[in-house]
Amino acid sequence: MDPQPPSRAPAAVVPGRRMAAEIAEQPAVWRRLLTDAREQIDSAAGVVRRRRPRFALLLGRGTSGNAALYAKYLLETTHGIPAGLVAPSTTTVYGARPDLRDVLMVAVSQSGGSPDLLRCVDAGRAAGALTLALTNNPASELAAAAELSVDLRAGTELAVAATKSYTAQLLALYLLLDRVGGGSGSAATSLPDLGDQVLCGTGLVAGLAQRYRFASRAVVTARGYSLPTAHEAALKLMETSYLSAQAMSGADLLHGPVAMVDPQLPVLAVVPSGAAGAAMDQVLARLRHLGADVLVVGARDAVARATVGVPLPGGVPEALSPVVEILPLQQLALHLAIARGGDPDAPRGLSKVTETV
Amino acid sequence: MDPQPPSRAPAAVVPGRRMAAEIAEQPAVWRRLLTDAREQIDSAAGVVRRRRPRFALLLGRGTSGNAALYAKYLLETTHGIPAGLVAPSTTTVYGARPDLRDVLMVAVSQSGGSPDLLRCVDAGRAAGALTLALTNNPASELAAAAELSVDLRAGTELAVAATKSYTAQLLALYLLLDRVGGGSGSAATSLPDLGDQVLCGTGLVAGLAQRYRFASRAVVTARGYSLPTAHEAALKLMETSYLSAQAMSGADLLHGPVAMVDPQLPVLAVVPSGAAGAAMDQVLARLRHLGADVLVVGARDAVARATVGVPLPGGVPEALSPVVEILPLQQLALHLAIARGGDPDAPRGLSKVTETV
Repeated sequence: MDPQPPSRAPAAVVPGRRMAAEIAEQPAVWRRLLTDAREQIDSAAGVVRRRRPRFALLLGRGTSGNAALYAKYLLETTHGIPAGLVAPSTTTVYGARPDLRDVLMVAVSQSGGSPDLLRCVDAGRAAGALTLALTNNPASELAAAAELSVDLRAGTELAVAATKSYTAQLLALYLLLDRVGGGSGSAATSLPDLGDQVLCGTGLVAGLAQRYRFASRAVVTARGYSLPTAHEAALKLMETSYLSAQAMSGADLLHGPVAMVDPQLPVLAVVPSGAAGAAMDQVLARLRHLGADVLVVGARDAVARATVGVPLPGGVPEALSPVVEILPLQQLALHLAIARGGDPDAPRGLSKVTETV
Repeated sequence: MDPQPPSRAPAAVVPGRRMAAEIAEQPAVWRRLLTDAREQIDSAAGVVRRRRPRFALLLGRGTSGNAALYAKYLLETTHGIPAGLVAPSTTTVYGARPDLRDVLMVAVSQSGGSPDLLRCVDAGRAAGALTLALTNNPASELAAAAELSVDLRAGTELAVAATKSYTAQLLALYLLLDRVGGGSGSAATSLPDLGDQVLCGTGLVAGLAQRYRFASRAVVTARGYSLPTAHEAALKLMETSYLSAQAMSGADLLHGPVAMVDPQLPVLAVVPSGAAGAAMDQVLARLRHLGADVLVVGARDAVARATVGVPLPGGVPEALSPVVEILPLQQLALHLAIARGGDPDAPRGLSKVTETV
């Protein structure tokens, strides 16, 4: 009897395989953005510079909304342009039609397929705003709807939890706005190597993840440029590990929510070196006084004063720190989800593109 | 032998006595605001109208920050003026000095004593913004620093958890902006009676609070004008009951955090009648599909489809619904804190005025 041909076994599903691969891919994505996107960014920056916007409106949902928050800090701090995050419902639910001359509207979306963002960009353009779309899909409706568009070139993102598209959004926003201000993005050239260095710390983070195996909630806190990092880390923990992770600015934490904090509530703090890290001193001192269990991702001296910590390499300019400091927090979400028996590539109840109205 | 005179027993401390009194006082506070503040509001509105601001920046921390978020919806929806919430750190940490001509900057603070808000208003005024302070203390530094100021007249607020100052802030913002648009605030005149009616439902809410006696976390969700209600309810639950309560827009909930939701995670949804309530249909349907336990505060038809609910009286215009719909949620925080053995008048680790930099 002829032996049966061996049946092809289905590829074993390794939990978090896609998310792990996309986390690891980030420095390569940044290298590509730093070279291949230069021309498109230069050209968009030139238009923005000529139109001299006086105000900015920023749009994004989920991870892309956190990148939009980063753009707010960049615009206000380095360009002196006041910026607001758009609540899409004012357009999509209430039909507001504000006068948007002199306004730069930036829409951030990995897929470029969110119907509410598309409606806001259409309405913004009709109301006189200079519209710019930042997507990972240059063929998307959003990229076509905006006057200017920048392609993230991050490659197809397969994991439901966005990682590489997030840091590509941050870096593209930095490069674009640096160019608007006449810079050449030179401060960003060392980022890919720094990213490789941070990603080597995987062993440390995988170990730390075990501490949160049975946690049901957490607070993630930061200030300034690092506030988007806190929001993005909380979102990753919510969507992959089902942890009720609350992000809030260190200042807002002290205005009430700090009452929740006791040694049973895990706190994660992002404390890079620089002004925002220094502004966290007051927050860290209060947390210490309360006996809180604090994981610090950031500067060595802040890590030394924490319960546990992940030190980041020095030499990253404060405005670029968010690109690097999210890496160990993405890894934490990945390892925690796996430790809890989940598959971060397939969080329950989520699909890659979410459509809201 | 003469009997000893009975020693005077110390007045028994009733937990939440102050917070309960201030919750109950709100309709009276609104009546006062509707009459006594009219002249001051008319005068401030006249200046705003003449200066024709094209953009607005809104400032506030904690509860006052939630009132500032309400102003954002009012400005964008009914005035077509794009508005951004100020991240004070761009001024206080990074020293940003944007060009603020044509900008209306509104600072909201119960005490008028927050140093970071004061610095932002000083910087905003120097940069050309029309500055307006909304405080409960007309003698405060903030009221003096701003070009225009409106006194909330809510009376001294003794409870650490703000209640009456919050709804006074909402109503004052409504009256001011309605006046800027040429209205007379007439839609608000029925609010005090509606407030009295809602507050009579105390028994229902006290019973509902028992369901959350052992919860450690919750999600509070809403859209549009009611999003500030969700944020304020979450803050009350955090500061009085130490519950990890996360507020998020229904749309943002669907963009990732919904993965957390299972029947063990309490969800509170604010669903008034009107456009924002209708936009919550998609969210409520998804929550139902997940088997979530949902408490709805809002319109009768939404309450009927929830696990438990608190119906609100009809006839409140959507833009004013936040003033009324927070009342049962304040009561919920009060009763839950007491049920958990705490004293909501003295949350651990908080004082009435928080100073952040």
